[in-house]
Amino acid sequence: MPRMGKLLLQLKAAAEEDRRHGLAFSPGRRHPLTTPRHAPVACRLVPACLAFCLVVLAAAATTLALALSLHRLGPDDPAAAGSPRGFSVVINTWKRPALLRRSAAHYAACAGVRAVHVVWSEPRPPPETLRRSVLNGTRRGTAVRFEINAADSLNNRFRPIRGLATDAVFSVDDDLIVPCSTLRFAFSVWQSAPAAMVGFVPRMHWLADTRGSTEEYRYGSWWSVWWTGTYSIVLSKASFFHKKYLDLYTNQMPPSIRTYVNENRNCEDIAMSFLVANATGAPPVWVQGRIFEIGSSGISSLKGHDLQRSRCLNAFAAMYGHMPLVATTVKAVDSRGSWFW
Amino acid sequence: MPRMGKLLLQLKAAAEEDRRHGLAFSPGRRHPLTTPRHAPVACRLVPACLAFCLVVLAAAATTLALALSLHRLGPDDPAAAGSPRGFSVVINTWKRPALLRRSAAHYAACAGVRAVHVVWSEPRPPPETLRRSVLNGTRRGTAVRFEINAADSLNNRFRPIRGLATDAVFSVDDDLIVPCSTLRFAFSVWQSAPAAMVGFVPRMHWLADTRGSTEEYRYGSWWSVWWTGTYSIVLSKASFFHKKYLDLYTNQMPPSIRTYVNENRNCEDIAMSFLVANATGAPPVWVQGRIFEIGSSGISSLKGHDLQRSRCLNAFAAMYGHMPLVATTVKAVDSRGSWFW
Repeated sequence: MPRMGKLLLQLKAAAEEDRRHGLAFSPGRRHPLTTPRHAPVACRLVPACLAFCLVVLAAAATTLALALSLHRLGPDDPAAAGSPRGFSVVINTWKRPALLRRSAAHYAACAGVRAVHVVWSEPRPPPETLRRSVLNGTRRGTAVRFEINAADSLNNRFRPIRGLATDAVFSVDDDLIVPCSTLRFAFSVWQSAPAAMVGFVPRMHWLADTRGSTEEYRYGSWWSVWWTGTYSIVLSKASFFHKKYLDLYTNQMPPSIRTYVNENRNCEDIAMSFLVANATGAPPVWVQGRIFEIGSSGISSLKGHDLQRSRCLNAFAAMYGHMPLVATTVKAVDSRGSWFW
Repeated sequence: MPRMGKLLLQLKAAAEEDRRHGLAFSPGRRHPLTTPRHAPVACRLVPACLAFCLVVLAAAATTLALALSLHRLGPDDPAAAGSPRGFSVVINTWKRPALLRRSAAHYAACAGVRAVHVVWSEPRPPPETLRRSVLNGTRRGTAVRFEINAADSLNNRFRPIRGLATDAVFSVDDDLIVPCSTLRFAFSVWQSAPAAMVGFVPRMHWLADTRGSTEEYRYGSWWSVWWTGTYSIVLSKASFFHKKYLDLYTNQMPPSIRTYVNENRNCEDIAMSFLVANATGAPPVWVQGRIFEIGSSGISSLKGHDLQRSRCLNAFAAMYGHMPLVATTVKAVDSRGSWFW
């Protein structure tokens, strides 16, 4: 079927190609009256080349228009609405009030979002001005709440939330904006896979030495996923998961893992990936979609980041006594944007 | 990114088209020795065009080579192995011994398949010759068993199977061959969405009159799914689902639905889609993959098929008192074959 799809596109391009060249069907252009006798063949090729370039542009434009027309289905399509219960957005923030204002307002305005919870991890509670601007900055009257933590710990982002209204939690950093339509699409993926982590940022655990006897792991960042198409982690800085994992992370997971996260100020997302993989025996789901960083790129841009992440992989695997992460090559895409059956 | 992909394909198509015409890539014709001095300006454009065309071909070739190199990962990649427990294949057959021999041998030879169950629905048990050839035609010593039903009913394909070894069931018609690698890929999707139907043949229920007050539904076959990218059903002639649905279908579902299926000799697959959607409140998952029909195309090719399917949709919706099917636009693709993040 994919072959059919490609064939269709190629036929279309080829047909337009032919028609525009007027080669196969227009004897008149094939032997133009204006061409001088014995003129160099090259000159007769020039129109063909120019037409070829035009066709390429035209084809691209047509595709874009077509794709856009289909995307118009978006907001109204049954899947977009998500389940009647919708989902809760949990924003993890730390000393970036401007970003928090912006992202809280964005997510509170998205259809399907039942509530926005801001995980606050500072000795002082949020200043009144910030609190007021965040709580009042929301359209649609979506409930926005601060979850106050005096201690600054990365584990705070996974603490169970009192009165959480939905099973589905979308966990996100304060500097990440996921467009509402993309968010709804990912939510519809989560509805089919409610036990899995469903997110936009895939990573991989690689065996450091595939031939060696020791099982040492290396952290594979985006390019290794791009190159191999294989991943075993989706980062919790932009992913859906079931609220039950908040309780499992905080109350059931070996405390040594939370301690490790606190001491190293890193890898709470890897810890959550281990937890979910260990509970389900299944891989997470990578959803294709564009997301936007509105702040600095955070700790992931620091030197030695990948080395530290690799250490986390090996430390957690040792604590579990095995490697629970499951690799996969599945990507969830919006079929409205893909033409190949 | 999808736009880039389409552009690349179309460039490739256009370039190949050009090559076939023998227009752009024949230097002999492009820069004929006969080119006179003081050639027209147009002629000086030719090298640019040539370069452009070459770049296009190079891009296409690189993509192809790269894609192929990645696909080599296939059989060895961690996801491909599926879970240790694997899955059972349930082949529904009816008076097509040659097809049954072929498909039973194929599925029994696929890695991850724990057992093959052949659903037999004829007054006479399978002839000894057929039985022997099917049971002995399997490599890997995979267990193959006949599930004998004297009555010819489409509901037989969903009857619970004694001693079914796995939670995952792959239900398939005797005239459909799904390549082993494609099957393993779909199984890895099911592992992340074990409550959903996960399959290769999507269909849609459309409101006959979107403005009208009455909720009458039309059955949308493949082209409507291709055009809109939206679906709410994956057909059980090639799909994974949890074995618990066999019991639900046979023992819990309103008997009137099984009676309807028997009387109309159709729509057992739609009935199963209603059942799963009603139990989960979630859509099924469409897996992109090529499957091959080795027999005649069956009842779906008969005249009035779509009309009869539409009748089933409305009859079942009436029996449920509502429409449980949930539409979605999610497609699970193998990220090793897609380059766009």
